[in-house]
Amino acid sequence: MAIEELKILAGLLPELRQNDSVATGPGDDCAVLKTPGGGPMDILAAVDQLARDVHYTGGTPPEAAGEKLLKRNLSDIAAMGGTPRWALLTVAAGGRDSEWVLRFCRGVAEYAATCDLPVVGGDLAGLEADTEVATLTILGEIPTGRAVLRSGARPGDGLYVTGSIGNSFESRHHLTFRPRLAEGEFLRGKATAMLDVSDGLLLDAERLARASQVDLILDAEKVPLRAGATLPEALGDGEDYELLFTAPSGMEKRWLRELAPLTRIGEVRPGAGQILDKHGKEYDIERTGYEH
Amino acid sequence: MAIEELKILAGLLPELRQNDSVATGPGDDCAVLKTPGGGPMDILAAVDQLARDVHYTGGTPPEAAGEKLLKRNLSDIAAMGGTPRWALLTVAAGGRDSEWVLRFCRGVAEYAATCDLPVVGGDLAGLEADTEVATLTILGEIPTGRAVLRSGARPGDGLYVTGSIGNSFESRHHLTFRPRLAEGEFLRGKATAMLDVSDGLLLDAERLARASQVDLILDAEKVPLRAGATLPEALGDGEDYELLFTAPSGMEKRWLRELAPLTRIGEVRPGAGQILDKHGKEYDIERTGYEH
Repeated sequence: MAIEELKILAGLLPELRQNDSVATGPGDDCAVLKTPGGGPMDILAAVDQLARDVHYTGGTPPEAAGEKLLKRNLSDIAAMGGTPRWALLTVAAGGRDSEWVLRFCRGVAEYAATCDLPVVGGDLAGLEADTEVATLTILGEIPTGRAVLRSGARPGDGLYVTGSIGNSFESRHHLTFRPRLAEGEFLRGKATAMLDVSDGLLLDAERLARASQVDLILDAEKVPLRAGATLPEALGDGEDYELLFTAPSGMEKRWLRELAPLTRIGEVRPGAGQILDKHGKEYDIERTGYEH
Repeated sequence: MAIEELKILAGLLPELRQNDSVATGPGDDCAVLKTPGGGPMDILAAVDQLARDVHYTGGTPPEAAGEKLLKRNLSDIAAMGGTPRWALLTVAAGGRDSEWVLRFCRGVAEYAATCDLPVVGGDLAGLEADTEVATLTILGEIPTGRAVLRSGARPGDGLYVTGSIGNSFESRHHLTFRPRLAEGEFLRGKATAMLDVSDGLLLDAERLARASQVDLILDAEKVPLRAGATLPEALGDGEDYELLFTAPSGMEKRWLRELAPLTRIGEVRPGAGQILDKHGKEYDIERTGYEH
């Protein structure tokens, strides 16, 4: 199936019927759900898939693949400013022995233990086809009404990114990264809009801009490049799992202790969702963006 | 991968490290989670997979397959006595066009709408291999401490089953069934132990017996057969999605209005997890049980 078709299908989700129990439905890093019976916390929920030859190569150590699946989901909790609480895991595998599946699950379990995150449910299935697909559902919590959405950026805010960007596959950063949970929690109540950079800096910046109905000026020269990365790679490749956020201008100096390395890479302007370079010219996202 | 290996791997889940936020961890129909910040309700969570050629044939209408995926998960909520609240969906598909995936998702969405159940998140991915795997995570609620577990059966209780059993595939019951949500809620505070019959009456009865550390006397002549089913099929086939539960003896007459058709098929005896016929002879579960 072509990835273009999947983009269309993904459009289905926002049309799915929601109700009053849903504070934020599909379309952000996590859904925000009102706690049954009321209470001081909202529930965060997200699900992500990991498939062989899409998110890792067949020769990747299974523990590393399992760990990556969990960390991608933790990055979604971080991007809301939340705290992870529980996970549910599925693995459907064909053409692998039980040892592979066992090691994959251990990769999830061992990283989960470092976050005091119980894996509370799961399902394993055999497949006829020679492939495997795993999913992880992450549940988290956040004080009621405090989730940092993609939609809160205001003209005049600065645009910031944690860490460095680009060359994630070759450097194995996509396997070894640490999800920015502490940074996400620190930014709760401070960042006006936030997401994690998973599909490419330009593409993810555009998502934030569209959700907030603003333009973003992105100064490409300021983008903090990971060792070995070119600027086009940094703008387009993805799998960085850094936090991209907007916040009142000048905050980068006050927050350096908690968030270093932190870089201001641009600012928010009135607009309707475009990403512009410092000369006001639109980036060509189609050419560099990468979705998977 | 052989299903025997998966049985071993499934043993991993109960070993995964839990914490105080988990009232009931892996091993029941749903996990029972304590609401963040406290409150009058617990959260129920479960995840299930649906794979082509395992849970449906390739020619099954995609809407019917999607609906089945959701209903299997709703049946798990029913088996705890809970109320479904939210769902998250993933589909990984190869060798299908976007129309197939769209129709599959609609099958989920349309049945979800009948239960006022928002689909709050999801993920779609393409696969290289010619197969598809979908997962659904169901979240529900139940008054704190009131979840009906598998472990509460007491000697002297009766053993009951809703509906009829057997011949699920040929009759298409496995696609057309209605999850027993109203019945499950009715039984909250009444049933002492409960699960849904998904992998075969004998195998699921044995799970209840082992969790409760009791023996079950199962009178095979009383098993309510679905039209066209033989007794061995009813005992072994699975995919019935009826509620199997224990409750004080004699309740079947009082509850017939809410639960009809309801059949008392046996009783609970002191023991350690065996399923015995009315002459006290153990059933041979290995020969008839079916796991998938």
